[in-house]
Amino acid sequence: MKRSDLTEKLLDIKREKGWSWKHICDTIGGMSPVMVTGAVLGNHKMTKPMAAQAAKLFGLSPLEEKLLNEVPNRGEGMTMPPTDPLMYRFYELVLINAPAWKQLIEEEFGDGIMSAIDFDMTMERLPDAKGDRVKIGMSGKFLPFKYYGATGNDQMLGYKEG
Amino acid sequence: MKRSDLTEKLLDIKREKGWSWKHICDTIGGMSPVMVTGAVLGNHKMTKPMAAQAAKLFGLSPLEEKLLNEVPNRGEGMTMPPTDPLMYRFYELVLINAPAWKQLIEEEFGDGIMSAIDFDMTMERLPDAKGDRVKIGMSGKFLPFKYYGATGNDQMLGYKEG
Amino acid sequence: MKRSDLTEKLLDIKREKGWSWKHICDTIGGMSPVMVTGAVLGNHKMTKPMAAQAAKLFGLSPLEEKLLNEVPNRGEGMTMPPTDPLMYRFYELVLINAPAWKQLIEEEFGDGIMSAIDFDMTMERLPDAKGDRVKIGMSGKFLPFKYYGATGNDQMLGYKEG
Amino acid sequence: MKRSDLTEKLLDIKREKGWSWKHICDTIGGMSPVMVTGAVLGNHKMTKPMAAQAAKLFGLSPLEEKLLNEVPNRGEGMTMPPTDPLMYRFYELVLINAPAWKQLIEEEFGDGIMSAIDFDMTMERLPDAKGDRVKIGMSGKFLPFKYYGATGNDQMLGYKEG
Amino acid sequence: MKRSDLTEKLLDIKREKGWSWKHICDTIGGMSPVMVTGAVLGNHKMTKPMAAQAAKLFGLSPLEEKLLNEVPNRGEGMTMPPTDPLMYRFYELVLINAPAWKQLIEEEFGDGIMSAIDFDMTMERLPDAKGDRVKIGMSGKFLPFKYYGATGNDQMLGYKEG
Amino acid sequence: MKRSDLTEKLLDIKREKGWSWKHICDTIGGMSPVMVTGAVLGNHKMTKPMAAQAAKLFGLSPLEEKLLNEVPNRGEGMTMPPTDPLMYRFYELVLINAPAWKQLIEEEFGDGIMSAIDFDMTMERLPDAKGDRVKIGMSGKFLPFKYYGATGNDQMLGYKEG
Amino acid sequence: MKRSDLTEKLLDIKREKGWSWKHICDTIGGMSPVMVTGAVLGNHKMTKPMAAQAAKLFGLSPLEEKLLNEVPNRGEGMTMPPTDPLMYRFYELVLINAPAWKQLIEEEFGDGIMSAIDFDMTMERLPDAKGDRVKIGMSGKFLPFKYYGATGNDQMLGYKEG
Amino acid sequence: MKRSDLTEKLLDIKREKGWSWKHICDTIGGMSPVMVTGAVLGNHKMTKPMAAQAAKLFGLSPLEEKLLNEVPNRGEGMTMPPTDPLMYRFYELVLINAPAWKQLIEEEFGDGIMSAIDFDMTMERLPDAKGDRVKIGMSGKFLPFKYYGATGNDQMLGYKEG
Amino acid sequence: MKRSDLTEKLLDIKREKGWSWKHICDTIGGMSPVMVTGAVLGNHKMTKPMAAQAAKLFGLSPLEEKLLNEVPNRGEGMTMPPTDPLMYRFYELVLINAPAWKQLIEEEFGDGIMSAIDFDMTMERLPDAKGDRVKIGMSGKFLPFKYYGATGNDQMLGYKEG
Amino acid sequence: MKRSDLTEKLLDIKREKGWSWKHICDTIGGMSPVMVTGAVLGNHKMTKPMAAQAAKLFGLSPLEEKLLNEVPNRGEGMTMPPTDPLMYRFYELVLINAPAWKQLIEEEFGDGIMSAIDFDMTMERLPDAKGDRVKIGMSGKFLPFKYYGATGNDQMLGYKEG
Repeated sequence: MKRSDLTEKLLDIKREKGWSWKHICDTIGGMSPVMVTGAVLGNHKMTKPMAAQAAKLFGLSPLEEKLLNEVPNRGEGMTMPPTDPLMYRFYELVLINAPAWKQLIEEEFGDGIMSAIDFDMTMERLPDAKGDRVKIGMSGKFLPFKYYGATGNDQMLGYKEG
Repeated sequence: MKRSDLTEKLLDIKREKGWSWKHICDTIGGMSPVMVTGAVLGNHKMTKPMAAQAAKLFGLSPLEEKLLNEVPNRGEGMTMPPTDPLMYRFYELVLINAPAWKQLIEEEFGDGIMSAIDFDMTMERLPDAKGDRVKIGMSGKFLPFKYYGATGNDQMLGYKEG
Repeated sequence: MKRSDLTEKLLDIKREKGWSWKHICDTIGGMSPVMVTGAVLGNHKMTKPMAAQAAKLFGLSPLEEKLLNEVPNRGEGMTMPPTDPLMYRFYELVLINAPAWKQLIEEEFGDGIMSAIDFDMTMERLPDAKGDRVKIGMSGKFLPFKYYGATGNDQMLGYKEG
Repeated sequence: MKRSDLTEKLLDIKREKGWSWKHICDTIGGMSPVMVTGAVLGNHKMTKPMAAQAAKLFGLSPLEEKLLNEVPNRGEGMTMPPTDPLMYRFYELVLINAPAWKQLIEEEFGDGIMSAIDFDMTMERLPDAKGDRVKIGMSGKFLPFKYYGATGNDQMLGYKEG
Repeated sequence: MKRSDLTEKLLDIKREKGWSWKHICDTIGGMSPVMVTGAVLGNHKMTKPMAAQAAKLFGLSPLEEKLLNEVPNRGEGMTMPPTDPLMYRFYELVLINAPAWKQLIEEEFGDGIMSAIDFDMTMERLPDAKGDRVKIGMSGKFLPFKYYGATGNDQMLGYKEG
Repeated sequence: MKRSDLTEKLLDIKREKGWSWKHICDTIGGMSPVMVTGAVLGNHKMTKPMAAQAAKLFGLSPLEEKLLNEVPNRGEGMTMPPTDPLMYRFYELVLINAPAWKQLIEEEFGDGIMSAIDFDMTMERLPDAKGDRVKIGMSGKFLPFKYYGATGNDQMLGYKEG
Repeated sequence: MKRSDLTEKLLDIKREKGWSWKHICDTIGGMSPVMVTGAVLGNHKMTKPMAAQAAKLFGLSPLEEKLLNEVPNRGEGMTMPPTDPLMYRFYELVLINAPAWKQLIEEEFGDGIMSAIDFDMTMERLPDAKGDRVKIGMSGKFLPFKYYGATGNDQMLGYKEG
Repeated sequence: MKRSDLTEKLLDIKREKGWSWKHICDTIGGMSPVMVTGAVLGNHKMTKPMAAQAAKLFGLSPLEEKLLNEVPNRGEGMTMPPTDPLMYRFYELVLINAPAWKQLIEEEFGDGIMSAIDFDMTMERLPDAKGDRVKIGMSGKFLPFKYYGATGNDQMLGYKEG
Repeated sequence: MKRSDLTEKLLDIKREKGWSWKHICDTIGGMSPVMVTGAVLGNHKMTKPMAAQAAKLFGLSPLEEKLLNEVPNRGEGMTMPPTDPLMYRFYELVLINAPAWKQLIEEEFGDGIMSAIDFDMTMERLPDAKGDRVKIGMSGKFLPFKYYGATGNDQMLGYKEG
Repeated sequence: MKRSDLTEKLLDIKREKGWSWKHICDTIGGMSPVMVTGAVLGNHKMTKPMAAQAAKLFGLSPLEEKLLNEVPNRGEGMTMPPTDPLMYRFYELVLINAPAWKQLIEEEFGDGIMSAIDFDMTMERLPDAKGDRVKIGMSGKFLPFKYYGATGNDQMLGYKEG
């Protein structure tokens, strides 16, 4: 059984029942809607309680429930650059702005990265007279590049005195 | 004269003078720091007053000042996927999460995209006991797919009654 | 159920019935023929009334009708550069002319883009003694690059005083 | 001498003099502005009278004037997909809509293509209360696929009786 | 029904019956053998009389006959560069010689292309004591780049006075 | 010294002198015009007498003359697929027709290839009331796939009895 | 029926019967083991007697036997660069050494290639105290680049007097 | 000034002086040899004291010293897959083994990654009678995928109860 | 039968039974867990005793057991760069550090590579107050580039006297 | 100083002096001609005595001599697939035959590879009435995949009892 086949089945049931993502996320619970939706689409693992809720909601077999509880091969089946305009715009934001983000993050934090693993995200509608806006809030833990010494001990240097 | 050569010159001056991006953005002004930094790096146009400020700060020739006032070939010289870890993490966020973003934006707003053109962005440090975080705020205008009719008139249909 | 399988089914029915695209577009209605054809081919969403008309015309199940009402993963399955000569010629027009289009649009409108979302298109036959011509009319809303200020307010600058 | 070096020189002079594309196109004349601009950018040949006008305007050497009169290696130096948002939107239009264009052109004209060689194009501003629009008019000669017979004679068959 | 599945079926029947391409091309008729063979392989449309002949020869259903009468997505399923040595040699001829062909065609004809649409081709065996040769005759209509004027009228300039 | 730099120099001289390819090919002699032009462009070796003629015509140094006598890295600097429309049309002919060519050559000759090494080519103008045509004649030696036996001797089998 | 499906079937039978390649090559005969193995894997044609032997050995249908007698689309399904380490090492030998091979072959033979069509190959175990070695013997016919003259006659020049 | 030009200069000095990497790493100090070497090669930042040591050792200008103290665009100029055999073998280890590493890490640690940022590495010679071995020790911090809740609070769930 | 289908079956059984990789590796035995896991995933061959153990554990047919005993097409189905974050981090380590590894290995060992074939690997949890770490131990045999002499004898030179 | 610039210089001197590769290889000595030629072309290291000989022959500076003694970034600047026909034919041999080589090597030797590092090669002319042949002799050490046990000891299993 492939995760992509299970995803197709889940989307067929969602379509047939006429459920919204809000309904699905509220029912499965346990994580932010962005993550739950991503998990249904096959890009995240569900925890055991979440998988149990999902199995109940979608009427899944024990094997399918277990598959939801596994870490999938994230990003599988995604085409880059995305062909879909909505998804491409995010790609474009990275393409055009990443060099500036790098400069500003390194000036503020030192050598390191914003984690894509310890990362939270919210998405909401921002009413605006000139046209409502998509408001996205992200926060990722800053991870300093560790500069290990020759001894192999954790002599963390550098990103403070830079 | 190529914009990439001018960028290299600007970075050499910044390096020599020991200026921070904050100092450069404050002096040039007129846009958010993300955009000013991007403009110095060759991914955005500076308005005339900004280009004048930049020319004064960096001691540029009139030709170089005019080049800063032109819209560059955005994204030129950027490698995708990015090889740099800091920049790659943003690429990865798109790779893993774009399908979920698409579902949630379309459920909330209907058929359309979040504009990458009418788009604002802030970046700040979020103090956190477990490790400070990079906090990013984005807001892009939602642009509904327009469904034009056979007459060519603007019979906007659809994304409301969906 | 995948949208591409539904597309294949729709094309089989069209073929069997001997219907023209004109007949299909007139029956489904609600959008320009370019968009309706694109929606049948799986690159656009149909609105609910359109999906209902399509379901009646093609004899679809409720699930298939709902799928037509969803926003598809646009561009999926398209190969770039196109291998088909008719489609490649459009790609070539972009390849050869896009730099000039960029210069002329920016000179006339300032920094920004022609929207591919708020975009209308007509296609007709232009009789010509030397050989009839394909006449294409396009109009896309100009979207100025917004230059947000450091405060995050909408201080739209720039593309007027450029 | 490479055409790309000459292009860079021409753009430097344009920048220094503060000329608009309109001024350049009016002075060189002989073709539509889209083509003259494309020729300055190195994607089209200039005819002899045009190259002479260009040489006078830009103060070029005889060798440079001759180079403008040669057919360049069209499309050289262009990145596909384009990284620049303005240019990408045109690419996206092809990516999303080419399958529909193919169906409609073939239904109206039979088997063949719209020429990208015998092709005319205009671009103008379309005032609109909701935001001005970029209006593009294209017309390309329809070229039917010729179905030659086994004898090698021009027994054009097919695209009429289909 | 996909054209590639129909191609596979046609090849199975050809194989089973032990038919030569010559027999198939003579029976279907109406075009040169290169085109008929290409049409059976899914890279060209058959005209209605040809499709009728093919249906009779191969014992096809009305739906399959109609599919042969449609313009396929030409080039679909072809890998470039070709992995097969016979096909790669043609690719190599383009790779090595196209720059010279460009120079010589432009010197003789002016700015333009050899049409790949109004194009005829013959292939025959050329007996030779040192080893027989494949003799290929091609003739494609020369299509001059049209230089349209600013008015949009057909002021064809250029390729004569060059 | 790189062959590509020498090519650029040769083209500058040709441009300055206003020489045609016909003049260059007649002066250098020794091969067909397609090959001489290709050799000037850096895709073929010139024989010693040809290199001597070329050195005299272009006023080259002994080192440059020797470089013309070397086998270049053929195809270097060529982009595939070609961006130039004239060159792309040849690529397209391979893309669309190579599968049919393979079938017909194998039916006529058996298992093997048309040589791209023992290959001759002529190009001429074919006057035609409906528009002159580019006439290309190719002939390449057929090379049968040799089926060597287990002993390593030349027990050529196969392509005759197939 | 696709050749790749037949290959999978042949490998299943080989696996089930526990046959070695040696047994298969000895039974089918007629070519060197490298070629017979390649033919079973779908990269070469079998001659008629070989296909008959293979059909008898594997218990194939007449249709399958005929398919083995056809020239396949060589190289289909192969990934380059190879992911498998054994196959990658051969790729690496080309990557690292091909420039030297080119120099030495051209110095010894003149302008031309080593044929990959009239090519023989043996593979054997070379006992060695420091570890047995794979010994490969290759011999390919040298094919001189033919330098045809302007008349189209076979005036072979060049590779002798160079 | 580009970092890659500085790298080339540093390697020239190393070559001229005949210094070993050991000498360079000992002199610059402050990090493990793998990191110092990587920093000289342009893939890591040097801290200020390290850059000062490097400037003294190599005789650099203040501008060059400052450049060494900047975070470079990591990975720039690296070709993937690597063409060099030594580097390719590491790539191959990832290609062949990453799926197994994923399973074993997730079974032991839960959903998350091994950090490539908080990562230490040692490399030494392991004497072995059958041939000395390269011994590599790696240790990267395990970073659990954080499962944030709908509130945006840090409700870390999951990787423990899995 | 394809190895990838067998892999899918094995994972379904593992999922259904709720077995850990540890249980599977202990039961099959004979190799390190990294290799056994890789073999179950289709990237390594199992020896006969291991395949027998696996067949017993998973309840496989004799044909499936034999397939496990074959060397697979290693790396098949793996996407590079990996889309999955856990796997990408290893790719990134190569991308960023391989140039430094090359320098240090060559300084210590001379010209050669670390074998990816005679290669051992362990993976374990390293408890750490700041967060447990993934500890990886690798050791690969150093293979010196052999410098064969003109006679073809094994005159190993070089990597000692360098 | 880049190795590719040194290569260009060495080729210029070879060209000017009219030296053959035989002369160069005989003078530098110490390795087989294929390796010496490869070293001059920048794909191999020269040992110290060889570099000294090369420096004397070509009149190099001490810095250049030292560069020849370094292990280069092998394969740098090589395009794959090769565009040059002579080099492409070797690529094609891998593309078409590698699957068969894999089967036969594994049947004879077990699981492992033919080393591309401990690898010797000879190339000579094989006179033949039907056309001289390029005879290539290769021998690479067979390296068995080592199957390490869970203890990390060298429990080499497998490739013997398979």
